[in-house]
Amino acid sequence: MKILIQNSTVIPLTEDSRVRENCHILIENDKFIGIGTTNELADQNLNLDHWKPDRTIQANDLLAIPGFVNAHTHAAMSLFRSFADDMPLLEWLEKKIWPAEARLTSEDVYWGTLLAIIEMLKSGTTCFADMYFFMPEVAKAVEESGIRASLARGLIGIAPEGEKSLDEGCQFAVDWRGKGNGRISVMLGPHAPYTCTPNYLEKVIRRAKELNLGLHIHLAETRNEVIEIQSKYGTTPVSLMNQIGLFDSPVLAAHCVHLSEEEMQILARSKVGIAHNPESNMKLASGIAPIQDLLSRNAIVALGTDGPASNNNLDLIQEMRSASLLQKVASGNPTALSAYTSLEMATVKGAAALGLDSEIGRITPGAKADLVLLDTRKPHWQPLHRPISTLVFSSLAADVSTVIVDGKILLEKGRVLTVDENEVFNQVRKRADRLVSDL
Amino acid sequence: MKILIQNSTVIPLTEDSRVRENCHILIENDKFIGIGTTNELADQNLNLDHWKPDRTIQANDLLAIPGFVNAHTHAAMSLFRSFADDMPLLEWLEKKIWPAEARLTSEDVYWGTLLAIIEMLKSGTTCFADMYFFMPEVAKAVEESGIRASLARGLIGIAPEGEKSLDEGCQFAVDWRGKGNGRISVMLGPHAPYTCTPNYLEKVIRRAKELNLGLHIHLAETRNEVIEIQSKYGTTPVSLMNQIGLFDSPVLAAHCVHLSEEEMQILARSKVGIAHNPESNMKLASGIAPIQDLLSRNAIVALGTDGPASNNNLDLIQEMRSASLLQKVASGNPTALSAYTSLEMATVKGAAALGLDSEIGRITPGAKADLVLLDTRKPHWQPLHRPISTLVFSSLAADVSTVIVDGKILLEKGRVLTVDENEVFNQVRKRADRLVSDL
Repeated sequence: MKILIQNSTVIPLTEDSRVRENCHILIENDKFIGIGTTNELADQNLNLDHWKPDRTIQANDLLAIPGFVNAHTHAAMSLFRSFADDMPLLEWLEKKIWPAEARLTSEDVYWGTLLAIIEMLKSGTTCFADMYFFMPEVAKAVEESGIRASLARGLIGIAPEGEKSLDEGCQFAVDWRGKGNGRISVMLGPHAPYTCTPNYLEKVIRRAKELNLGLHIHLAETRNEVIEIQSKYGTTPVSLMNQIGLFDSPVLAAHCVHLSEEEMQILARSKVGIAHNPESNMKLASGIAPIQDLLSRNAIVALGTDGPASNNNLDLIQEMRSASLLQKVASGNPTALSAYTSLEMATVKGAAALGLDSEIGRITPGAKADLVLLDTRKPHWQPLHRPISTLVFSSLAADVSTVIVDGKILLEKGRVLTVDENEVFNQVRKRADRLVSDL
Repeated sequence: MKILIQNSTVIPLTEDSRVRENCHILIENDKFIGIGTTNELADQNLNLDHWKPDRTIQANDLLAIPGFVNAHTHAAMSLFRSFADDMPLLEWLEKKIWPAEARLTSEDVYWGTLLAIIEMLKSGTTCFADMYFFMPEVAKAVEESGIRASLARGLIGIAPEGEKSLDEGCQFAVDWRGKGNGRISVMLGPHAPYTCTPNYLEKVIRRAKELNLGLHIHLAETRNEVIEIQSKYGTTPVSLMNQIGLFDSPVLAAHCVHLSEEEMQILARSKVGIAHNPESNMKLASGIAPIQDLLSRNAIVALGTDGPASNNNLDLIQEMRSASLLQKVASGNPTALSAYTSLEMATVKGAAALGLDSEIGRITPGAKADLVLLDTRKPHWQPLHRPISTLVFSSLAADVSTVIVDGKILLEKGRVLTVDENEVFNQVRKRADRLVSDL
């Protein structure tokens, strides 16, 4: 399959941060094979008179960007969207979320994940990092829908079935690694330092090394976590993880809100992928992550939405905006976290945080063809002085008009082509009612 | 004209904060005349078998809310959307915004305002409070488009033409008050304590009293403003305004970020309408307004976007979300500024801040028929556990499907019926290029 995207404005997210105008993008099978003006392509031996695409997309008023990477979520929690909000954290978890989650079946997780995937595709996300349970169902939804994902079974070490879930998590990783033409990658998912003892984590680390897997973990999300770890182990969460050797493997660490100077240096030095979740951190009042400080120490900072119960959507455009605005007001500096830096976090840095930066995150020849077209013929895009600023500070998820993953068109004219949206809505409504009844 | 909205879910924003299901809304000419189930309407002598509407809107999957009130903006600054961002405030103003504004013609302001009105209608805003210049052009755009607005010519007292602009502002108010079947209301617009001396403000206050007008002003937006006023007058902005008698007239005060305890009490006691602009305050790093403290002192707090150059859109759904999320993280309390409180700020409290709460802000018999229908058949609305939470924390401006102002349908199926969108886009592009060239 050959796709030509013609006369687009392009933000390629390559080393050259400039916006390209009147630019063509050539896709063959699962990869970009060329990007440039007609003349530039001719210089690369790509003559548009002879290169015959199967599909041509006229993109004169469309903006092309790499697909967004949602670096941290729990997709199936879409089932609990807006079910309980504006509550104290512990009451929310103990009285609402945990009892509802206890009722989840594998089928619920399958349909909840499909709902999340529809929402993600419609808002321009082409890859997501998920930590949850019933992960084979999540993988099935990913495989069927055509999206890309990095999947980890969540491991609660202190739970009675902690050891069993580690076995399951490893088996899941072995079974699904590379499936879907390589769209599915896998990690182990130790939940957090306060739900996994150092002893348990050491086992997880050993298994990860044996299987050559990365680790997806929540780290330093709340002040209470820091206090609890400090009182139990005499050190703070990131330092504790460093001591037990977590960072010897590739790590994707969600949140990282409460960090000491030493911990920021550990994260940067260890090339930990940090998934910043500004809206979840705001909504749950967890705190404001020191993103400016992390960036100035060359840490790898990506963006995530967290689960839809604590956000309440999976919209990375809003997350980019919130990330920039929050750092500006928190630092008292309107130049903090520019639009372009936010966009990097949502694309190329997300790819790096998931260990996929050799494959995705940029529009460049040789990379996997994960691409989003946004329709700029909307009032909030007018006049289009600077596309990067308008994308981050003014655009809407609903401006996404076309989504391509792995060279396949998954969304066109606002419709997802690979999933029956109405069936998913019906399934989800029915299941959601059962899951929360009497809670 | 009689319009029947049938079987809608309704958040009426009346004393009863419950969400109504399967509810009908009856509109006759410019007013709501009934709301309720078929039986409830029959009890009010509104028999649906006999009441024959000219238009019936089937609203089974639609959510009905009062139109949003944008309590503070500079609509025509849409011309400068995303033209300059991520800059220090003074450099942004001096090198970019002010030189571009100096080139504005009255026609530019007309087209820029129309662009903003299109964006506002498409995102569910039915009334806005504007402070700018060339205000007759703004009023013309409001009159033609069918939207509702409270308009004030901005008055820079320290400018050479300060006195002349006051005369113009008064003349504008006299000329346009009540025009457009009462959709246009007017105020005087002294810009701020740092651009209007106490002597000048006293003249404005006198004229406002003579003409029975309210005042729209920027107050306590930045730390620098507080320092400047303190050093010049030995007191802080709100206290200074109180001393010179500003609050003897109805006042709409934008921002109110930096306030002492005494100033919060003055604002609450004087029933000042406070227009909170969280995204502008974040983007320009002005600070975090003490909204929780103001609400607990019974102050009237509304929501505004500020101008599109400092936001960069006119989207009150995003503003509601940002308001809630920001207060939660700033206070460390996830129960702060609930979804419903945010929705009140964007509707009924906005109406109150503009002195229009006897007319708009609620869906209730006798009120002006300003109404928005949102399409919930979208993935980010599924499953619909709690409509208020989903509206505030998950919805998109693009979910707005129908907008009614003053009993007239202005937007349907996402299209504005009263303005030629393409002509506006073309005019705006052309003018915007001229306005910013070489800046």
